[in-house]
Amino acid sequence: MLPHAIIAKKRDGQALSRDEIEQFVSGVVTGEFADYQSAALLMAIVLKGMSTQETAWLTEAMMRSGRVVELPEISRPKVDKHSTGGVGDKVSLILAPLAAACGLCVPMMSGRGLGHTGGTLDKLDSIPGFSVELDDAAYRKQLRDIHHAMIGQSADMVPADRKLYALRDVTATVESIPLICASILSKKLAEGIDALVLDVKCGSGAFMKTEAQAHELAEALVHISRGIGKPTSALITRMEQPLGRAVGNSLEVIEAIQCLQGNGPADLMEVTYALTGEMLALGGICESPAAAQERMETAIADGSALNAFRDLVCAQGGDASVIEANERLPHAAKRLEICYEGEGAGYVSKLDALAVGEAARLLGAGRTNLQSQIDLAVGFVFEKKLGDAVKSGDVVATIHFNDAEKLEAARERLLAAIQYSADKPDMPPIIMDRIST
Amino acid sequence: MLPHAIIAKKRDGQALSRDEIEQFVSGVVTGEFADYQSAALLMAIVLKGMSTQETAWLTEAMMRSGRVVELPEISRPKVDKHSTGGVGDKVSLILAPLAAACGLCVPMMSGRGLGHTGGTLDKLDSIPGFSVELDDAAYRKQLRDIHHAMIGQSADMVPADRKLYALRDVTATVESIPLICASILSKKLAEGIDALVLDVKCGSGAFMKTEAQAHELAEALVHISRGIGKPTSALITRMEQPLGRAVGNSLEVIEAIQCLQGNGPADLMEVTYALTGEMLALGGICESPAAAQERMETAIADGSALNAFRDLVCAQGGDASVIEANERLPHAAKRLEICYEGEGAGYVSKLDALAVGEAARLLGAGRTNLQSQIDLAVGFVFEKKLGDAVKSGDVVATIHFNDAEKLEAARERLLAAIQYSADKPDMPPIIMDRIST
Repeated sequence: MLPHAIIAKKRDGQALSRDEIEQFVSGVVTGEFADYQSAALLMAIVLKGMSTQETAWLTEAMMRSGRVVELPEISRPKVDKHSTGGVGDKVSLILAPLAAACGLCVPMMSGRGLGHTGGTLDKLDSIPGFSVELDDAAYRKQLRDIHHAMIGQSADMVPADRKLYALRDVTATVESIPLICASILSKKLAEGIDALVLDVKCGSGAFMKTEAQAHELAEALVHISRGIGKPTSALITRMEQPLGRAVGNSLEVIEAIQCLQGNGPADLMEVTYALTGEMLALGGICESPAAAQERMETAIADGSALNAFRDLVCAQGGDASVIEANERLPHAAKRLEICYEGEGAGYVSKLDALAVGEAARLLGAGRTNLQSQIDLAVGFVFEKKLGDAVKSGDVVATIHFNDAEKLEAARERLLAAIQYSADKPDMPPIIMDRIST
Repeated sequence: MLPHAIIAKKRDGQALSRDEIEQFVSGVVTGEFADYQSAALLMAIVLKGMSTQETAWLTEAMMRSGRVVELPEISRPKVDKHSTGGVGDKVSLILAPLAAACGLCVPMMSGRGLGHTGGTLDKLDSIPGFSVELDDAAYRKQLRDIHHAMIGQSADMVPADRKLYALRDVTATVESIPLICASILSKKLAEGIDALVLDVKCGSGAFMKTEAQAHELAEALVHISRGIGKPTSALITRMEQPLGRAVGNSLEVIEAIQCLQGNGPADLMEVTYALTGEMLALGGICESPAAAQERMETAIADGSALNAFRDLVCAQGGDASVIEANERLPHAAKRLEICYEGEGAGYVSKLDALAVGEAARLLGAGRTNLQSQIDLAVGFVFEKKLGDAVKSGDVVATIHFNDAEKLEAARERLLAAIQYSADKPDMPPIIMDRIST
């Protein structure tokens, strides 16, 4: 079938066959589908949709467009987590060693940050010596030895997603549940995992702004991934304010270490425990997420999760002394405190995640485009979060910065992100929903 | 505004501003809009539509993407005709000299054929020596001297349409009333005409298959062209069977000459008079199309229309002796008669225009793609047309061919195009509707 006929079929609202979808995906990689033809088909998919069956075929075709990892030598259950991206989301750094300490294998492949959300690989870059590129043999050895790894996906994996994502980014065809599902799942399922947990972020700082959108995406992801034969569950978690207190690459590594040391902020630990619990349940280590709680808390309390992280840093060439000596991580030259200057007492009523993420990007912590250089040291640490009481003069946040010019723009955006009220605002639960069938 | 934002706006069903549309069209020409971005926007336009105002802005922006001809030195009203394309449609060859003989200036720029429909330039190519490429000075001199010309549009005119058309062709984004309107009108209005008549073909052999589609396109074309300030009317004409008796380039030139000599078939003359009458009315030469009838018939009867054609052929370097000696036009080496072989008398009940056009293309008369070479001599002449009585042994059509292999495929397709019935079929009028406001 000619590309033209496949595009016309979707344009006219018809379902594509498995063959047609496979022809499209292989055509994207070989060039038989020209970029302009792919772009036209992508827009038709955005506007006419895809059934669950079509999306599953698209996911599988994309997954098989490159190398698919198989890990038969690993006896532990192999479970990974994917987050749709938020501000201050350093959950992976805590969750992977925690899950490994509790008996899972976590063969995690992550991405870099773009726009207002950070990327796990960027955060790991701030650990001196840490390499996120392992060859296949080293990767497999590490999974056997210490049961988790955190690397970038190599270029021979899921090439169709790489091409399509670049195209979607410049053709306004990102916003499509089927395309998002296929992109996320093709990458994760190519890791050779047995089961998958999804963190679908919802709110101002997330890609999905409303609960309805987040629900639709989470349902679709779980449905399709299970249809492909992978036990999958999803949590919808609130992303109206940054997760935890730190935003910025090395600052987030420090906070992750604090979490593993048992000193993590409540919201971040709640999300981390919830997601890790889902993984342990899907992997068959625990009967249910609730039943995993004690095991996880023990792994934090007895230091086994922190030891797993130490093993990870060492295995990937990093300087593990940063765990005890945070100051060896990249740190900014200057700090500026942002204080509450209202009269009388009040409460933090808004700490807009999107604006905080944008402020961090302006400060140099994030990328405007894939070529941007980022400053690993800069960012924010929030002393006060949503619902916290403030009185005049209280430090609300500290800006860690290197460049006075960038500071100005970032500070302005940050100030606009924070609002106060006389009454304590409602604090809705951070775990908004759970989709497991 | 970034291309991405313009695409997103149309994707979300919003109207684009004049600025945004101009940025798109100039971006197509400069490359600021990459092909894949244009393709995504085109698909969004196909699926989300464009208002009349947006389409008018698109038309004007495309028209101004290259050189726009102005003809202030021409005192006669400058009126042109455009047809959406049919099978056996040689109306332009008759209409242009006829309108010139009746007092108009016809600065006609035409295209080549693709698929099952023929192109005026291809037909003119069959006249030995005839050149469809004139430089600006020669073109203007000819319009002053003999009041009509028939040329191809030079590469410096309407470049945005050329690029977009090529892209639409391979991305399944041809079928869109706003895009079709902008493509047709931008090319015609760049000719510097005062008024325009449109022949919107309707039926199996036309791009618009149904009366409703044809009506929608005709209304949109007239509305938008008038909105841009050009008096415009449209006829919807039936294209269920070929127009006239000849299909094929030099065969159609011969038939056009016969028409100018007063020996044209009724259907072809009816459409030609109707369209030329509209032009004469819009140009102010006659009070109404009906009032133009006598004048046109006189121009045929007294030879002035034929003389105008002779002037045209001479002015553009052609051998005018072909008018009296048709055999000097390219002619096929062989002929094959297709006869009615039924028992007893009957009627031609179907002469499917699309199938006839495809048969002609298989014979070599038309193009499969823009690189195809065409055989100017081959084609069909129909002795019988829809509704004509036939008895056993009657010749229905003659195939003029050069290549026995091509003959086989063409003959098979042609035979399938013709059906017979015992009763005389209904013969609905060929002029289906007229849209003038």
